[in-house]
Amino acid sequence: MLTLYHSPYSRSSRVIAQLMLMGELDAVEVITVDVLRHDGVGRRDPHNAHPEGKVPYLVTEDGQGIRESAAIMMYLDEVFGQPFSPEIGSPKRGAYLSWMAYAGGVLDPVLVAAFSGLDHPAITGTFRSIEEVCTTLAAALNQGPFLLGDELSVADILLASPFQWAPHLMPDNASIKAWVGRVGDRLDGETIAAYEARATAQLSTQAGT
Amino acid sequence: MLTLYHSPYSRSSRVIAQLMLMGELDAVEVITVDVLRHDGVGRRDPHNAHPEGKVPYLVTEDGQGIRESAAIMMYLDEVFGQPFSPEIGSPKRGAYLSWMAYAGGVLDPVLVAAFSGLDHPAITGTFRSIEEVCTTLAAALNQGPFLLGDELSVADILLASPFQWAPHLMPDNASIKAWVGRVGDRLDGETIAAYEARATAQLSTQAGT
Ligand SMILES: N[C@@H](CCC(=O)N[C@@H](CS)C(=O)NCC(=O)O)C(=O)O
Ligand SMILES: N[C@@H](CCC(=O)N[C@@H](CS)C(=O)NCC(=O)O)C(=O)O
Repeated sequence: MLTLYHSPYSRSSRVIAQLMLMGELDAVEVITVDVLRHDGVGRRDPHNAHPEGKVPYLVTEDGQGIRESAAIMMYLDEVFGQPFSPEIGSPKRGAYLSWMAYAGGVLDPVLVAAFSGLDHPAITGTFRSIEEVCTTLAAALNQGPFLLGDELSVADILLASPFQWAPHLMPDNASIKAWVGRVGDRLDGETIAAYEARATAQLSTQAGT
Repeated sequence: MLTLYHSPYSRSSRVIAQLMLMGELDAVEVITVDVLRHDGVGRRDPHNAHPEGKVPYLVTEDGQGIRESAAIMMYLDEVFGQPFSPEIGSPKRGAYLSWMAYAGGVLDPVLVAAFSGLDHPAITGTFRSIEEVCTTLAAALNQGPFLLGDELSVADILLASPFQWAPHLMPDNASIKAWVGRVGDRLDGETIAAYEARATAQLSTQAGT
């Protein structure tokens, strides 16, 4: 069985959302772990198999570790028959790969810098800023309801997630706001919230023992 | 025809190296452009189709733009029949996706910070440092000559490239150094150097006109 290391209300929550959307949450063993958060709350959890104590982390049946949300989400989508990604050779494949690499390679560094008030020429020179992210997302969303056009894909789940979880980072842009809403509508918000509440309760029980 | 925007001795050089290794450089139209470099040399080139003036950038036959080295290299490998990546469903697929996401999501931010002497808790907290990169690469290379084991893959070309081009960033680790050497041996260094010299000459001619 696949094993996912997850911490509630974190970057691994989007993987839980993806598994629920595919109806495959039961096909994966989820191990709830604590992580050290930005605000200093939490701790590195000795039960987390990720070599640096981060989430998400996926371990395959034959013991391979997969790190980075984009890789984990692409892999899970492939394992379950690619319900939410374009197949190799199909027209949207290039755009899909581009968005999946953009998430970790640009969006994440830009949001980390913005979130912590870091304004350094090496960061803005290489990754640019929220404005360019906004321009990039809006340009795609002017072509269709989702990043790849008419169909929701793993790219939407990955890239909309920071704005769902940290609404204060949401750019003041109507098409981006509408898209984050549309992606949220396709996910089962209530079930996810209940799942996360249970995972949080489980963590505090573990911490108390 | 596919169009690649390339600038000599930059992050797009690894894409040229990949195309040469596949024997497919002639199948892609390469447009040589200038970019603004860390040291302030160069300029944003109006001929570059990348919306932020970066390289590499790939435009498909039907006009889709693909950004980020990892996405471009995965896409090119797929277009040419996956000679240097594991197919979907094959045993090394998860590790491959993990390395491709790690390149842009961890290695690049860590190297950008190290290169510019930036030491900020938001960066080191999220991406960690050269030490963790070193541990991660060395752990894989203790299992085999290349990141995925016995076979060279696109992941090696992508992840070894910063150390080939900026040897002062090379970690002081024997297995990493040997791996960078092995990857270099598989690429045609002389032909790449001649190509880059021609591209540089072409750029200065363009700048002079
Ligand atoms: N780019 C990585 C980032 C992973 C990451 O930093 N996750 C956070 C949770 S939101 C974490 O585990 N932090 C704890 C730590 O860095 O020790 C991904 O998306 O998978
Ligand atoms: N993560 C991106 C980084 C692209 C990038 O920053 N490329 C540099 C060349 S080494 C560039 O184009 N710099 C010019 C600029 O940022 O304006 C990738 O690997 O494709």
